[in-house]
Amino acid sequence: MTDEDHGDSFDVARTRIEDSFGRQGLMRTLGVELVSIEPGRVELALRHDDRLTQQHGFMHAGTITSVLDTACGYAAYSRMPPEASVLTVSFTVNLLAPAAGERFAIVGQVIRAGRTLTVCRGEAFADADTRPFAVMQATMTAVRDRPGIAG
Amino acid sequence: MTDEDHGDSFDVARTRIEDSFGRQGLMRTLGVELVSIEPGRVELALRHDDRLTQQHGFMHAGTITSVLDTACGYAAYSRMPPEASVLTVSFTVNLLAPAAGERFAIVGQVIRAGRTLTVCRGEAFADADTRPFAVMQATMTAVRDRPGIAG
Amino acid sequence: MTDEDHGDSFDVARTRIEDSFGRQGLMRTLGVELVSIEPGRVELALRHDDRLTQQHGFMHAGTITSVLDTACGYAAYSRMPPEASVLTVSFTVNLLAPAAGERFAIVGQVIRAGRTLTVCRGEAFADADTRPFAVMQATMTAVRDRPGIAG
Amino acid sequence: MTDEDHGDSFDVARTRIEDSFGRQGLMRTLGVELVSIEPGRVELALRHDDRLTQQHGFMHAGTITSVLDTACGYAAYSRMPPEASVLTVSFTVNLLAPAAGERFAIVGQVIRAGRTLTVCRGEAFADADTRPFAVMQATMTAVRDRPGIAG
Repeated sequence: MTDEDHGDSFDVARTRIEDSFGRQGLMRTLGVELVSIEPGRVELALRHDDRLTQQHGFMHAGTITSVLDTACGYAAYSRMPPEASVLTVSFTVNLLAPAAGERFAIVGQVIRAGRTLTVCRGEAFADADTRPFAVMQATMTAVRDRPGIAG
Repeated sequence: MTDEDHGDSFDVARTRIEDSFGRQGLMRTLGVELVSIEPGRVELALRHDDRLTQQHGFMHAGTITSVLDTACGYAAYSRMPPEASVLTVSFTVNLLAPAAGERFAIVGQVIRAGRTLTVCRGEAFADADTRPFAVMQATMTAVRDRPGIAG
Repeated sequence: MTDEDHGDSFDVARTRIEDSFGRQGLMRTLGVELVSIEPGRVELALRHDDRLTQQHGFMHAGTITSVLDTACGYAAYSRMPPEASVLTVSFTVNLLAPAAGERFAIVGQVIRAGRTLTVCRGEAFADADTRPFAVMQATMTAVRDRPGIAG
Repeated sequence: MTDEDHGDSFDVARTRIEDSFGRQGLMRTLGVELVSIEPGRVELALRHDDRLTQQHGFMHAGTITSVLDTACGYAAYSRMPPEASVLTVSFTVNLLAPAAGERFAIVGQVIRAGRTLTVCRGEAFADADTRPFAVMQATMTAVRDRPGIAG
């Protein structure tokens, strides 16, 4: 799939991602909202919550990583064929500044999609700041015909 | 501090870590338990919980990463002087297998501690499996004299 | 330093980088060329050479990483004050496709510069391809007053 | 292949690795020596050389990474079936101290081998120091039936 065949055909992928997102217990627990799904790009939103902090009262690196991973995973999934499922292989996260703010925009984008592996970049922004406070480089894999793994 | 001067002096570090861990909202939300604290090594435990899953019902990569990051952060902190606080600079996580199981043991260990930066290795084990299903390589930093950051 | 105060003041940083680059034995051995230096961005070029390959005849991941690391290091250095030196803390590299081609353009850019740590992104392009075949996420540190480390 | 079926059957894998190593132009240029090959573990050696340095006269992070990548790649390859070739997917390297010394021992080890992806850990040691000065976490892939890629 390329960015060009946006349109009706992409509605199937969008629905598939919405369904899969709805099955993630963690996204519900973190209160994450699905903002937008485009081919190769997914944006999520998170709000500050004292249940999700580290010891200094900032959002925990693990909280931010959870949302970055989900955004990157679905960005990759948006480029995968219908029979594939998506799993995370690995990611690297840099925390450039403490996660301080009220609302966090978290964006995952495909850098390059292969038949099996897809590499993504994730960025997390606090409130109106246009510079990311956290960045991710992630490797996602398409999984086919594995029992118990669908979506 | 070296592994040798274990003893009374380390009780101060242990108390400092217990206090800091108790202030992490996310650890409470994930139901994480502090199993042991030794110089340069911290072990945590997590139980399977449907509130913390990804779309296939396994524990979310972000859940596992959150606990790995906390274990590595406090392993680093256990080697830092009393006036320092700890923050995560970056980490890389590889998911070697889906996080399937009832109870997960998550261990962070210092590879090398410097004056400012400390590099740690984290490993996550499911139930009785002695092979890790997830590994982390993390860089932690000691922070001194920064307003709003203590512990 | 911001992108805005480009100009005479930046000539000092440029000269400093050229001098430092000239002292890197490895860059000479790999035949790397310094293409451009701007505030927060450095571009290098590498040519295919059978002395620098892996077992299938492509350029070795280590060769590409060496040049990505140098590009990111000097991108970070271009934002550091005159008294600082630059060292690599860590990096993650994803190889998106084999390094096949005649000429490789390798670009390092600052994502965010702090007082001590600077995070950069590197990208490697083969010939006329506008999609990177390798990407780096790197953490660089400013070093001050350490014996034997200058430039 | 498991650690248990060491013996005659492993001689085939050892020869395959020696042949592949011999085809790496970069290993010859860096003067790297193949020290030992065991199932899931490969050790290489490198000597200080002014042709391979960064700007302060230490061995370049890219030089060390090149050897870590090769050690991890062949550690993974030693566990792969005869028809597979090995390629690097990604790696993260932490430089814990400058690469200062005369002789560097560089070890790659398999953490977990899957059908397609294998995760490895690499460590670099200087002279008699038993603490690593650099560590790698790497993802390698088995490649089958891809034109131009064998060994």
